[in-house]
Amino acid sequence: MLATMSSYFIRTLREDPADAEVQSHKLLLRGGYIRRAAPGGYTWLPLGLRVLRNVERIVREEMDRVGAQEVLFPALLPKEPYEATDRWEEYGPNLFRLVDRKGADMLLAPTHEEMFTLLVKDLYSSYKDLPVTLYQIQTKYRDEARPRAGLIRGREFVMKDAYSFDVSDEGLAASYEQMRVAYQRIFERLGLPYVICQATSGAMGGSRSEEFLFPCEIGEDTFVRTDGGYAANVEAVRTVRPDPVVGNHPPATDIETPGASTIATVVDYFNTHHPRADRPWDASDTLKSVVIAATHPDGTRETIVVGIAGDRGVDMKRLEAEFAPAEIEMATAADISKFDALVPGFLGPAVCGPNYVDNAGNRLGPRFFVDAHVADNSVWITGGNRSGYHTYNLVYGRDFAADGIVEASEIREGEAAPDGSGPLRLARGIEIGHIFQLGRKYAKALGLTVLDENGKTQVVTMGSYGIGVSRVMAALAEQDCDELGLKWSKEIAPFQVHVLATGKKPEIFAAASQLAGLLDGRGIDVLCDDRPKMSAGVKFKDAELLGMPYIVVLGRDFEKEGTVEIRDRRAGTRQSVEFAQAADVLEGLVK
Amino acid sequence: MLATMSSYFIRTLREDPADAEVQSHKLLLRGGYIRRAAPGGYTWLPLGLRVLRNVERIVREEMDRVGAQEVLFPALLPKEPYEATDRWEEYGPNLFRLVDRKGADMLLAPTHEEMFTLLVKDLYSSYKDLPVTLYQIQTKYRDEARPRAGLIRGREFVMKDAYSFDVSDEGLAASYEQMRVAYQRIFERLGLPYVICQATSGAMGGSRSEEFLFPCEIGEDTFVRTDGGYAANVEAVRTVRPDPVVGNHPPATDIETPGASTIATVVDYFNTHHPRADRPWDASDTLKSVVIAATHPDGTRETIVVGIAGDRGVDMKRLEAEFAPAEIEMATAADISKFDALVPGFLGPAVCGPNYVDNAGNRLGPRFFVDAHVADNSVWITGGNRSGYHTYNLVYGRDFAADGIVEASEIREGEAAPDGSGPLRLARGIEIGHIFQLGRKYAKALGLTVLDENGKTQVVTMGSYGIGVSRVMAALAEQDCDELGLKWSKEIAPFQVHVLATGKKPEIFAAASQLAGLLDGRGIDVLCDDRPKMSAGVKFKDAELLGMPYIVVLGRDFEKEGTVEIRDRRAGTRQSVEFAQAADVLEGLVK
Repeated sequence: MLATMSSYFIRTLREDPADAEVQSHKLLLRGGYIRRAAPGGYTWLPLGLRVLRNVERIVREEMDRVGAQEVLFPALLPKEPYEATDRWEEYGPNLFRLVDRKGADMLLAPTHEEMFTLLVKDLYSSYKDLPVTLYQIQTKYRDEARPRAGLIRGREFVMKDAYSFDVSDEGLAASYEQMRVAYQRIFERLGLPYVICQATSGAMGGSRSEEFLFPCEIGEDTFVRTDGGYAANVEAVRTVRPDPVVGNHPPATDIETPGASTIATVVDYFNTHHPRADRPWDASDTLKSVVIAATHPDGTRETIVVGIAGDRGVDMKRLEAEFAPAEIEMATAADISKFDALVPGFLGPAVCGPNYVDNAGNRLGPRFFVDAHVADNSVWITGGNRSGYHTYNLVYGRDFAADGIVEASEIREGEAAPDGSGPLRLARGIEIGHIFQLGRKYAKALGLTVLDENGKTQVVTMGSYGIGVSRVMAALAEQDCDELGLKWSKEIAPFQVHVLATGKKPEIFAAASQLAGLLDGRGIDVLCDDRPKMSAGVKFKDAELLGMPYIVVLGRDFEKEGTVEIRDRRAGTRQSVEFAQAADVLEGLVK
Repeated sequence: MLATMSSYFIRTLREDPADAEVQSHKLLLRGGYIRRAAPGGYTWLPLGLRVLRNVERIVREEMDRVGAQEVLFPALLPKEPYEATDRWEEYGPNLFRLVDRKGADMLLAPTHEEMFTLLVKDLYSSYKDLPVTLYQIQTKYRDEARPRAGLIRGREFVMKDAYSFDVSDEGLAASYEQMRVAYQRIFERLGLPYVICQATSGAMGGSRSEEFLFPCEIGEDTFVRTDGGYAANVEAVRTVRPDPVVGNHPPATDIETPGASTIATVVDYFNTHHPRADRPWDASDTLKSVVIAATHPDGTRETIVVGIAGDRGVDMKRLEAEFAPAEIEMATAADISKFDALVPGFLGPAVCGPNYVDNAGNRLGPRFFVDAHVADNSVWITGGNRSGYHTYNLVYGRDFAADGIVEASEIREGEAAPDGSGPLRLARGIEIGHIFQLGRKYAKALGLTVLDENGKTQVVTMGSYGIGVSRVMAALAEQDCDELGLKWSKEIAPFQVHVLATGKKPEIFAAASQLAGLLDGRGIDVLCDDRPKMSAGVKFKDAELLGMPYIVVLGRDFEKEGTVEIRDRRAGTRQSVEFAQAADVLEGLVK
């Protein structure tokens, strides 16, 4: 395709738009690739649409290569299938819901597990029909609380979602592995570095689950990795439980701690009034009682207390994963005041969970959990459940129990990996793909069974495989840029060659147009800057901003010596070439 | 692409599905092209998606050829732009509306005039930037009252919508003409017959408007045409007003008409008790007062009376076009009883419209219109506004007036065309395209202006051009089929060649697979029926149902003589070809 800057629907911006924070968002807006149309919704301008289609093409080719078959579902769907799997509720406020003219509840699908399950149920009935993997590249909808960073987190976005259907667990494992390889190939072709992280499966249910993360400072996902090859989303890291503390501890004792209501002042108080023999007290000796509020999908709000060592930060995302599908936040005064016994600032386990029941065994306090770093038989300073009091020598397992152990605290750089592969390093990334083994949850809920070799009914087992197609484009822009603008790879660029006619001589413009036509004829996509009254400086700036891999300049050298300059935008190199050779040289570079 | 029936995601149905009325819907379901996923929402199976993509490709190529540039908008949009043009309300119940988690009103766009207008306003500011034509191929949403006939009228469907932007009226006319030519080319390439009909512009506003109708018995649109070249949607036909009746009529007289409450009994009564001297009375002498209820976009419901000659049928669609954007239906007893003076069965103009006011000039009855066939000074028998009474010699213009003249009655075969090109013939069709000149309505409402040569601000003038892409596919299926199944053209077919291996010999299957691979290697899309334990009969039936243009049979003749049979599904012809020549022959047919 040949496009000319004089008629192409594009306007570049010199300044960064006010509402864009991250580099990819700024450059895609400045380069005229996208425009904001709604909160979390973007319009694809001609240039951006070409990039999107290139990403889609690569994804499609690799899906087809492993035998996945393309279908396309509606986005607007009836409630019923999503009710059958409880997701109508579980999605909570993240789901766009609406009512049609007949009063029927409908939704804009955030993902299509249910519909694919029903489709396979509709068409297939025998083990001989399986395995099958289906996919679609489709517009998805999620009512994100905080759409951000342009295409990275939108409310309307393009996704490739695939689903595998197998009779046996081994079949699922094979389908999963095949898709995992396809994903590696896709991201390699896209030129996007990735880390495969163990992941939790969130609202999806299921067992094995891995995320493909593009490592990147502006990513929303924190992950950990070791030199030994371990990598996991922080939500998925299972803490190595510390060994139980050995020995008998003195009995728990309440003590008045005037003026001490924070961890620091409590530690100070103890060091002053009750110094330890072996070492000073520090924050790690205290167990803070963190009060959170969990909002369950049905809308009920629950106050929950979590005990965490005082020197550890709370990781709300890790903690939230433990209570999924509920959403959590720090409790408000109102949440805390639901229980009279909770004294803010002096809260301890004694008024929580299994530790606080009436004679009939009924709970009197909120549910209570401890962080996974709390060892059995460990000894703590905690709040005394009276204003101005603390308790010390309170022993986990002896003096108090919990409703469970949760991953509540931030992972620390250098902590041990669960698989023993060494110390964890922390990094940030953007989730670009997610593959997981759903197992039989959806098939069971929706009645997808097949007859096996023996005529027996078997529930089908499924895998689910997503790639954020529009997000991948943002990740590519995030990676393939410099201070001047974008620099796309050949496979992704909207045009492979950007021809600039500079100066005022009509011969130059004619030659530029001739070269562009020649390249177009050879199947190379060319953008030709033929704007007559535009300075060379502006044209160079635009070409650098737009980021086609090869920029061809026709200017003074062409006039004088009949040569053109070919710039490699990514390598930053340039070469001078006879005009007559230009098309051949470019074809060699592009192909 | 090469696909095999043994692994392709397809199941054919022998019986017509219960919920499908029209042929295209039945065959697309039976052939495994689509499946119903929601009311008015269909899933594209692999086969159907390939056809859809072929239609899209042709549309895209012809849009690109005339220089239209492709963009892509979100479907989920904020209310505000649609409020600025009043369409948020005007669309009434046809618009899918929803509220997001922050309480903002949003909609699923049925069409994108507003967004394109705002986009051009965002990027362009000078007359030098124009003209420009932009388009998208995108999923659209309309909450149809009666989704029907599969892809023909859905609630979620694929549309190509294009918009032109010009400074001058002449520019708009040229852009419109260019798009009109592109549409002709598209439908010719698709092999879909069409009639270009004058149309009303409906809720869109604007001036010149034409529909591309595919003539077809099951079409929802009635249109008229003449041998002289006139063609129009019935809603757009303006009746040739009859000449005024000459002469003075006797005074209007009330008369008791015992037992006469229908047009037939009234005519009988008059012929018996008040015979005319010149000829018998007939239904055309009576003016029936039709009571309708109009629901306005704001939800208010209005009772309206329309006077129509008793021998003419009411055309609710033509009448509705007159009251757009209101929707109309026949009035209920409740609607009629809003006005005490309306006596059902004996209603006349005297208690309606400008004929029924109090001393202060306030209206006491409903609005009143007369059908365009009612001549000035025409004389009528009407209801007498008392039970058991009629009025005769009631003269339009002398004894009663109306709030306006409307197109209320059915067009009759043989009526005169408004342009004098001869008698009208009636036909039915499916609207496959619609082009119209919006003018400056949207640009004005949304402030899209450019500076002209003299630095003066000019409001831009727009055209809007739609093609129902998924509907076109249904129209093609409707046309390209016979009692056995579908028969796609080469350009549209999901696969050009369908290879059948019949019998049980492995050599036949090997040869079929070899031929299919050979064709695939030459860039021909092939579907190979390699199902091992399936009878030849079933394979033939499936091939006929699926409708690929060329069916190649390897069977007994191949075993005996090494020949294959090539069937042309559309022409119904067959030829026997040496196996070694088969690929060449097929390539010749396909290319």
